[in-house]
Amino acid sequence: MSEAPQGASPVRAARVAILSVGDELVLGQIEDSNASWIARELCALGAEPGERRTVGDDRAALAEAMRALASSHDALVVTGGLGPTLDDLTREALCDIVDGAGVALVEDPKGVAHLESWFAARGRPMPASNLRQAMRPPSARLLDNPNGTAPGLAAPAREGRAQVFCLPGPPNEMKPMFARAVAPVLARGGSVVATAALHTIGLGESSIGELLDDLMSRGREPSVGTTASDGIVSIRIRATGAGEAARAALEETVALCRARVGAIIFGRDGESLASVVGAMLAERRLVLATAESCTGGLLGARITDVAGSSAWYAGGFVTYENARKVADLGVREATLAAHGAVSHETAIEMARGALERTGAALALATTGVAGPSGGNDAKPVGTVYIALARRGAEVVSRRFHFPGDRATVRSRTAHLALACARFALLGEATRPILWAEGEACRVERA
Amino acid sequence: MSEAPQGASPVRAARVAILSVGDELVLGQIEDSNASWIARELCALGAEPGERRTVGDDRAALAEAMRALASSHDALVVTGGLGPTLDDLTREALCDIVDGAGVALVEDPKGVAHLESWFAARGRPMPASNLRQAMRPPSARLLDNPNGTAPGLAAPAREGRAQVFCLPGPPNEMKPMFARAVAPVLARGGSVVATAALHTIGLGESSIGELLDDLMSRGREPSVGTTASDGIVSIRIRATGAGEAARAALEETVALCRARVGAIIFGRDGESLASVVGAMLAERRLVLATAESCTGGLLGARITDVAGSSAWYAGGFVTYENARKVADLGVREATLAAHGAVSHETAIEMARGALERTGAALALATTGVAGPSGGNDAKPVGTVYIALARRGAEVVSRRFHFPGDRATVRSRTAHLALACARFALLGEATRPILWAEGEACRVERA
Repeated sequence: MSEAPQGASPVRAARVAILSVGDELVLGQIEDSNASWIARELCALGAEPGERRTVGDDRAALAEAMRALASSHDALVVTGGLGPTLDDLTREALCDIVDGAGVALVEDPKGVAHLESWFAARGRPMPASNLRQAMRPPSARLLDNPNGTAPGLAAPAREGRAQVFCLPGPPNEMKPMFARAVAPVLARGGSVVATAALHTIGLGESSIGELLDDLMSRGREPSVGTTASDGIVSIRIRATGAGEAARAALEETVALCRARVGAIIFGRDGESLASVVGAMLAERRLVLATAESCTGGLLGARITDVAGSSAWYAGGFVTYENARKVADLGVREATLAAHGAVSHETAIEMARGALERTGAALALATTGVAGPSGGNDAKPVGTVYIALARRGAEVVSRRFHFPGDRATVRSRTAHLALACARFALLGEATRPILWAEGEACRVERA
Repeated sequence: MSEAPQGASPVRAARVAILSVGDELVLGQIEDSNASWIARELCALGAEPGERRTVGDDRAALAEAMRALASSHDALVVTGGLGPTLDDLTREALCDIVDGAGVALVEDPKGVAHLESWFAARGRPMPASNLRQAMRPPSARLLDNPNGTAPGLAAPAREGRAQVFCLPGPPNEMKPMFARAVAPVLARGGSVVATAALHTIGLGESSIGELLDDLMSRGREPSVGTTASDGIVSIRIRATGAGEAARAALEETVALCRARVGAIIFGRDGESLASVVGAMLAERRLVLATAESCTGGLLGARITDVAGSSAWYAGGFVTYENARKVADLGVREATLAAHGAVSHETAIEMARGALERTGAALALATTGVAGPSGGNDAKPVGTVYIALARRGAEVVSRRFHFPGDRATVRSRTAHLALACARFALLGEATRPILWAEGEACRVERA
């Protein structure tokens, strides 16, 4: 991914570099979610994500990275450094490479008008510092920003053939500007990069790798790879070529993967466990409820992250202290005393209580030791019980032991709870989940 | 940030490049949280994060990026590409640059023993493909991985002076390996990069910029910058120099920023709103409860993300459907009929209900239109009410209007709810929150 092929080719996709700007990124103080979003948009447009770099708030370093990337790609998308403060230097660095070092920025009357109307509409005086955002290199044009004060900038690089687009860092400003001002320029005919991701839960990455085997050979077209995150193994397929042919080849490999890996594939691309479970519930007109201890609301948060989840999610109970388990879910004091809050028995009573109190058709309960403290020999940190109650059916509780820190244990628990609901809706309520070490399954009648 | 100074200097910090490997990163299919974590660790060690690049699963591109970064830095940390499948090529690319192209990998008996005992301990047969993970370049050594199958690799680059460290991609394997095998090598005397972040909520980024003004001039040492995310504006301070002097200069600038910005600074570095509110509650032996509609559990999840939150968080109610607001929180049907679920009146009854049902000292309630649908002229998408009930005090409800998509609205709501609790604990329960456009404050007696 170091150098772009320079020769013109009839079906070559535009190769686009991504440059993220900011000390806070270089120092790791914030995550850079813009670069990956832009990469996905480029793929969807039929352009190819090229080299990705991150540089700090340093005018010379920024100009040098812009120059290097613009000279080896068809286009460069820069994000960040357009704010009103003195550490925002993207305007100046762009001027250095499109108009030349020493050329001064000019004030753009349209930019001034945008800023004035922005603040007027909000009944606030404009801080003088915001006027910096109306400055541009002489050969650049401003890109409208309806969602913030900073206009974007677009200009042809002085050396090379690349168009350079500078977008604001805040995602809610950057994304609409990319869609309006950048995407139409890059979405040209010819080669496309078509991608698909198939998400699985229930087997480890190497087991999936063995099922896919020859499909993952290097050089195979379309290519197949796997990645794992919080118990979810994703199969990633990528086809490059002329439009329809690439998409057809992609779908053929997707079908091969589905045939080999089977029902543990729960979703594709942007589908989440919650959105998939939600679609199954909505189709059957069933409603889900939750009773959370160790996840503390994370399961509900993942569920309600899905737009429209009110159609299939009643709500739930965050019973973090034991008194709440008793009062809100009807867990018996005797159960807590005999088995503890982290047990099959408590998980089962939590799920049953949520079912009864909400009138939902299914209820998921989580209870476990998320850590860092609270573990013991019998129930070390990472021990989690997930119970699923269904109206008119037995309550199933599974025990898991998850490796990792507090955040990992909580995240895996929320994923696995949804996986348990999915297997139940598929008619496999007692399916073992193979990669979960130490996993045990217990079934109790409701 | 393009080229490291090559001359030796007595107090120069080791400059370390970071290379992230994987098609899934280049294509934007997953976020790269490893690079920012490593950058933060480097700062803490007194090393300086240098250039950051991301490349796909391509042996030649990977070797070229390794070569370029190793020749311009003191060390290179590579993550990813050590898995058992054929798309994992970091071992091969490392061999190309440390032993030379065409040199074959060798099987390391210690690596084989690690894999055999890993699978034996789990009572599972070892997939043959895992043996690839015991291979290494002849001049490299393996780094122990107690948390996964993939050993890491360390070797001196053939050209240049850099040490190259290759670590697995999964964070729960990468982080302990970095701490054990990489950090001690890089933590050498001399210059350090000391950083601090002060987190604020309640004012916009340009207003904070005006308060800090001259402190943000380019070239000032220590440097001061700001970043904004989901309503939180962070002031980022960075000092470089000889150990104690850098840390003293850092603290001096931190004190200047605190004096200018005042009480809206809620935390520093890794502190979150939830951890800060938790510490205030714990100190006063008070317990918090939650009643969530539009956040659907996200507020509880943020709270319970804090280890030890059981000391000050009772739990709460995810009353997503209106029936739950009535049954679990005692919201009156008449209130819902007259004012709707998204209203001051409903928010106030939710908070009061949570307080009464849990016996907590404080209760936070959220209700709003997270979108994408459900808005109207009077209450467009992004309209949110946050109410705070305190035992023996009036209930305060605030109305906000947040720009952005569903995830942004939900995230800001959870942040602002915690900010409301913080201002109440500071004795400023009715403090307006200035940047929130259209914000209105309403106070009703409990």
